[in-house]
Amino acid sequence: MRTIWPTDHRTVGIIDQTRLPFELAKVELTSAQDAARAIKSMLVRGAPLIGATAAYGVALAVSHDPSDASLKHTIDLLGGTRPTATNLRWALERCGRKIGSLATAARADAAWRLASLICEEDVAINRAIGHHGLELIRARHRPNRPVNILTHCNAGWLATVDYGTALSPVYAAHDCGISVHVWVDETRPRNQGASLTAWELAKHGVPHTVIVDNVGGHLMQHGMVDLCIVGTDRTTATGDVANKVGTYLKALAARDNDVPFYVALPSPSIDWNLTDGVTEIPIEQRDATEVTHITGQTDDGKTQTVCLTPPGSPAANYAFDVTPARLVTALITERGVCPASRDGLRSLFPEQS
Amino acid sequence: MRTIWPTDHRTVGIIDQTRLPFELAKVELTSAQDAARAIKSMLVRGAPLIGATAAYGVALAVSHDPSDASLKHTIDLLGGTRPTATNLRWALERCGRKIGSLATAARADAAWRLASLICEEDVAINRAIGHHGLELIRARHRPNRPVNILTHCNAGWLATVDYGTALSPVYAAHDCGISVHVWVDETRPRNQGASLTAWELAKHGVPHTVIVDNVGGHLMQHGMVDLCIVGTDRTTATGDVANKVGTYLKALAARDNDVPFYVALPSPSIDWNLTDGVTEIPIEQRDATEVTHITGQTDDGKTQTVCLTPPGSPAANYAFDVTPARLVTALITERGVCPASRDGLRSLFPEQS
Repeated sequence: MRTIWPTDHRTVGIIDQTRLPFELAKVELTSAQDAARAIKSMLVRGAPLIGATAAYGVALAVSHDPSDASLKHTIDLLGGTRPTATNLRWALERCGRKIGSLATAARADAAWRLASLICEEDVAINRAIGHHGLELIRARHRPNRPVNILTHCNAGWLATVDYGTALSPVYAAHDCGISVHVWVDETRPRNQGASLTAWELAKHGVPHTVIVDNVGGHLMQHGMVDLCIVGTDRTTATGDVANKVGTYLKALAARDNDVPFYVALPSPSIDWNLTDGVTEIPIEQRDATEVTHITGQTDDGKTQTVCLTPPGSPAANYAFDVTPARLVTALITERGVCPASRDGLRSLFPEQS
Repeated sequence: MRTIWPTDHRTVGIIDQTRLPFELAKVELTSAQDAARAIKSMLVRGAPLIGATAAYGVALAVSHDPSDASLKHTIDLLGGTRPTATNLRWALERCGRKIGSLATAARADAAWRLASLICEEDVAINRAIGHHGLELIRARHRPNRPVNILTHCNAGWLATVDYGTALSPVYAAHDCGISVHVWVDETRPRNQGASLTAWELAKHGVPHTVIVDNVGGHLMQHGMVDLCIVGTDRTTATGDVANKVGTYLKALAARDNDVPFYVALPSPSIDWNLTDGVTEIPIEQRDATEVTHITGQTDDGKTQTVCLTPPGSPAANYAFDVTPARLVTALITERGVCPASRDGLRSLFPEQS
């Protein structure tokens, strides 16, 4: 199963990830507006999957109206859904360049082909990330104990088209018989760890334990984490990474306890124009109700939202933070592992020099 | 209003803090068993309030049975409720020494007087902490903007008999007209920040904003935090502090961004026997359901517990972590402010040399 797929009648199927881990519900997108809403409301999330969804959003739009005006409007609409992940912009620029260069009559077929190509490329990228990251896990393996891996948020197959970024090496290690155990940060406020990463790992049979986001430092102080792997929504040309808020805190703890801190990324998440993540990457602020309210399942199986805060208390909801390159042990890309630095990235992507 | 009080008929009143912020419910304790349950189930929590509750637990027990056996049994019972906070042990040792030295006929009256004295001392200590900490806040004050203070967990009046430890300086600053704004970490898994600190601050009219525990690092990177103040459940003679899990991560972020990180503590929370917090302070592990389930209020005002994790995913629940002294800018005690070090503490408490 993949996270996104075209249907026979030129609509797009996705998993409504807001209903996991309790229900695996599929939703059909029939327009670019549907795709924009799915991204904004986080039915789909994860930088690579957002990019893939945007590409299919363009395909849905030009199937209805292949004009230049429609193409531009669609790209603006989808581009405005979420500010931090750069894959969204990367996919839309690629679609705009390719589709815009064609005669209108050829655009629809080309847009569907391009969206499908972007998805296939993502799958291939993530398999390669798994292949390279596997060796980092293997290097930490000791007899008679699992390799303890901490991850934050969800960078598994649900965050991509398939395989995942940060979890791809974990699945690769598990599948080749290396004993692994994953500490799953619940990842407040939207709990992508507790609801998506835990669900993925359970389905795949990978041993794991859910923890609140506060616990990782304690575990690292006591030798209970062998390495950290996280994803990223935007990586600067100098190796700074913007990932789900709280990642920076884990990177600080890893540094303080000599625990390797790896970031797994497909190259479309690199923003080659940026050199200072903290000052240059826009950090999305989302609705305060994501902090003040939470949704779960009651004992009798009903989905229920409850309020956690006093009525008179405001809340703020910053969705990402930036981990400076100096805290990142290495980047795991589809082309291999490199230092989190301009030279490191250029060594793997010389065409960007 | 205080958090704990003796009644006219020799029982003890407390606030059931598990029902805040939605209901201010009072509960009557009539036995040491009641007191032990209230501590263990966290109807009362916060190191100073745990100590005060234990002292009243001893008074309740010796009122029924003033024998040596009863006294010893009660101290063992109450001492086994929670392992990390040292105030509990401190209060029980003090009660055991004082009450055990008296004839049985004199024990009940003496035990009630001692519990009351411990409470009055706590109030005086916390007022003094507020007085000393106020100057640290005043020093960060700049015209036309509030002093932004980040706190983790609840170390307000609800965590003590009155005034609080970390929040006592905040209330003192607010009351003398210094503009303050508090970033309130929600403090998973039990959300003492979102439910108790936010409620306290709202009642007192102190401007504040609730954030998830992941956000503090981002705020500090962007100059949005002027100082941090937290409490502590146990402080070593060398200035290491065990506080609610996640405190260590905030201290790391404060150090990385040159934000002062203060710990407010009454001297009964100092364990003069310990020199290495990370290896020597026992860290309580609580039930995993505190991570997998959460309780809040539905739109129609009902209290409801919901599950957040997939059925097949285990969880772990470490309740505290240790912040090494090297990350603490200064300790705020009832005798003044000192470096977080053996020499610093000895300068204020020379009788412990």
